[in-house]
Amino acid sequence: MSTTPAFRRLPRAVREQQMLDAAVRVFSRRGFHAASMDEIAEDAGISKPMVYAYLGTKEELFIACLHREGARMLETIAGAIGPDLPPDQRLWHGLQAFFGFVATYRDGWVVLYRQARGEPPFAGELAMMRARMAEVVAGMLKRTLHAEGREVRETDLEIQAYALVGASESLADWLADRPDADPDQLATRMVNIAWLGADQLLSGEVWHRPAEG
Amino acid sequence: MSTTPAFRRLPRAVREQQMLDAAVRVFSRRGFHAASMDEIAEDAGISKPMVYAYLGTKEELFIACLHREGARMLETIAGAIGPDLPPDQRLWHGLQAFFGFVATYRDGWVVLYRQARGEPPFAGELAMMRARMAEVVAGMLKRTLHAEGREVRETDLEIQAYALVGASESLADWLADRPDADPDQLATRMVNIAWLGADQLLSGEVWHRPAEG
Repeated sequence: MSTTPAFRRLPRAVREQQMLDAAVRVFSRRGFHAASMDEIAEDAGISKPMVYAYLGTKEELFIACLHREGARMLETIAGAIGPDLPPDQRLWHGLQAFFGFVATYRDGWVVLYRQARGEPPFAGELAMMRARMAEVVAGMLKRTLHAEGREVRETDLEIQAYALVGASESLADWLADRPDADPDQLATRMVNIAWLGADQLLSGEVWHRPAEG
Repeated sequence: MSTTPAFRRLPRAVREQQMLDAAVRVFSRRGFHAASMDEIAEDAGISKPMVYAYLGTKEELFIACLHREGARMLETIAGAIGPDLPPDQRLWHGLQAFFGFVATYRDGWVVLYRQARGEPPFAGELAMMRARMAEVVAGMLKRTLHAEGREVRETDLEIQAYALVGASESLADWLADRPDADPDQLATRMVNIAWLGADQLLSGEVWHRPAEG
């Protein structure tokens, strides 16, 4: 439309990302209620009216953070899972990407998960993101089974997906509290748990991560 | 101390339980913020000053609900796990008791888990209960391994416990939304997932629940 779209739009996109970065930092430091738009504006180095003009109220800003962190996380995971790998290695790459994301963006995880879970208006939003993640996992399980010529009840796939998502969430939260824990080691443990099961673990079987990392 | 302790104390204990029953119903119907002490008193068939006198403020009443439902749940699970059973059957009995509890006391689960998780002042309380549950599970895993003459890093036991607790919580929440789902069938699926692992499940292995249970 404009003759100089790159010149006019890039700064806005960059500014929005700066504001979201600042908002994630402040929300995760203060919590949703105590966070002030003043502090977010100051952290972003932008005037408060500009924050309101670009991203709306504090609620809208929080939802924008939630969406950005959630989309970033899903892209990271999806990008890591090669479609042609054997199922245990897809599980490994998915979990490695997920726990790596949590360890890298601890602030983002705190906003995405703990704050949203703790605030009734946002908990529904989070439940929807979890349901989408479970659908993606159930779809992957289904394709893996199809490739082996097997059928499993949709409900059983859904249950398995919710179990995997719940276990991974619980461990991500465990990781977020332990800055010294190694996300790759955690992913390896989780593959052992989910892939081998307690039966094989108790009899001393071990699953090893692929050598290339 | 008193000459008629049974006579004087029983009615109070019974009344408290009636108030807690009413409070769980009202909190789970309305949510913590919208629930009124008037409605709780009316539901319990007791005057509002008496509710305050016995159980304190709305916050204190909610925490009393949380503690009662949590203690009830842990007792139900612990009572179901026979110490001399093989590990897969202990897992089965524990999960059967847990999902059965959620299906029987849906209101209690909603208070215990969803409301508490959604209210920052109570979320810490819930996290502590989850940590205790994970400790219990880790202790059981450790004893099972010791019995087989094996040692595993404490951290690995903790990780496995958090994975199991997270998966079970996620499925309990799934169950709470599906009044038609059979808790025993869900427990059987969860044992298949946790005991056999994806490796054996994908190759068609099935774990069957014990005939009597």
